[in-house]
Amino acid sequence: EIAAAAERLLGRRDLEGRRVVVTAGPTREPIDPVRFVSNPSTGKMGYAIARAARRRGAEVVLVSGPVSLEPPPGVKVVRVGAAEELARALLAEVDAADLVVAAAAVSDYRPKRPSDRKLKKSDGEESIVFTRTPDALLAAGERFAGRAGAPVLVGFAAETEDLVENARGKLARKRLDLVVANQVGAPGAGFGGDRNAVLLVEAAGTPREVAGTKDEVAEAILDRAVELLGAKRPRG
Amino acid sequence: EIAAAAERLLGRRDLEGRRVVVTAGPTREPIDPVRFVSNPSTGKMGYAIARAARRRGAEVVLVSGPVSLEPPPGVKVVRVGAAEELARALLAEVDAADLVVAAAAVSDYRPKRPSDRKLKKSDGEESIVFTRTPDALLAAGERFAGRAGAPVLVGFAAETEDLVENARGKLARKRLDLVVANQVGAPGAGFGGDRNAVLLVEAAGTPREVAGTKDEVAEAILDRAVELLGAKRPRG
Repeated sequence: EIAAAAERLLGRRDLEGRRVVVTAGPTREPIDPVRFVSNPSTGKMGYAIARAARRRGAEVVLVSGPVSLEPPPGVKVVRVGAAEELARALLAEVDAADLVVAAAAVSDYRPKRPSDRKLKKSDGEESIVFTRTPDALLAAGERFAGRAGAPVLVGFAAETEDLVENARGKLARKRLDLVVANQVGAPGAGFGGDRNAVLLVEAAGTPREVAGTKDEVAEAILDRAVELLGAKRPRG
Repeated sequence: EIAAAAERLLGRRDLEGRRVVVTAGPTREPIDPVRFVSNPSTGKMGYAIARAARRRGAEVVLVSGPVSLEPPPGVKVVRVGAAEELARALLAEVDAADLVVAAAAVSDYRPKRPSDRKLKKSDGEESIVFTRTPDALLAAGERFAGRAGAPVLVGFAAETEDLVENARGKLARKRLDLVVANQVGAPGAGFGGDRNAVLLVEAAGTPREVAGTKDEVAEAILDRAVELLGAKRPRG
């Protein structure tokens, strides 16, 4: 009865004793000292997940790209710039993690040869060669493939078309447990706003739609992650 | 005596009756619906100038790229994304302006053929062709070249090397009255922070160094702009 009262006061503490790593925000891939390739991620979704996981009792590490949000209280924040830095930070944390939620919008490509100096304007056109960035979540999935005690891995997919099909492809390719799929350009979804509408996609079953504030969507993602965690990494 | 007391209370009102157009923040040049080229401008310097000009009595239009700052009270804000949009917004305002302060960090280049769809990852390298963006400040300078009653034009130059030389080149090429030059990478200067250290560069004379909070640097820029305005566009 005391436990039930505490739960009413504090909310669920179902991540107590769990270590959760969240990535959030965009990455910036330098072209030269004053130019980069990036994306419009504000980090709000990832920060909401980190905050919610902390509230639910987890020890939380938030690997954050450049955003203008206040760090959630009680959360260890690791700041990163480029995809390569994010990959290093994530892979350094992943072994100790029970749950990884990769909400950052990581650039797939980076300029192959960033310049040390600001490029001077010249007339006409310029061509920049891009090369692939490391895929930290894929590397994490591979590291734990087939191993007992692997952490629950949750990825995000922002797509302009074939949402579920692309999300399932990502799930299988990266050996994820859950993909949170966003329709880019759909009203009330995705980048920038305070609300989100997503599909929770798993290997089997019908994708479940969740819509609400980013805080509400964060709770729904963690509700499902906690179930997956109970199955995959039951408490000692 | 009353005027002097008011000035002590309210600060200088030396831009009363003047129309000031300020640009601020970065631009974003789309690669596809979820990727763009941008720069680390936070808009703080431009917003400080807009706020100071308003406090000094001006009617202020702030043409702002995507930033996470509160709009200054009493200022008309026009929000823009890409350099082309910023150019349209600036050129629509410039004819009625007494003073233009172009503090935005405008991309010089944009992807030539942005894609409507999110590009799917493929292995290996990709090449993206970039083309020049319109230079709105250059166009403004050309529009007024040799005309009586031209507005005072203030530009910014962020350079990694040959600061004064590059600033003077920009001043002459764009027919500006004043260039605010930033050493990129110098401690306490430029992108992101709350302080700035700049050189005020004109066609003649020794560049003047100004350092302080961005609010203090904004006041110093306006002090000089007001003098130039008195000479170039004396009050009726």
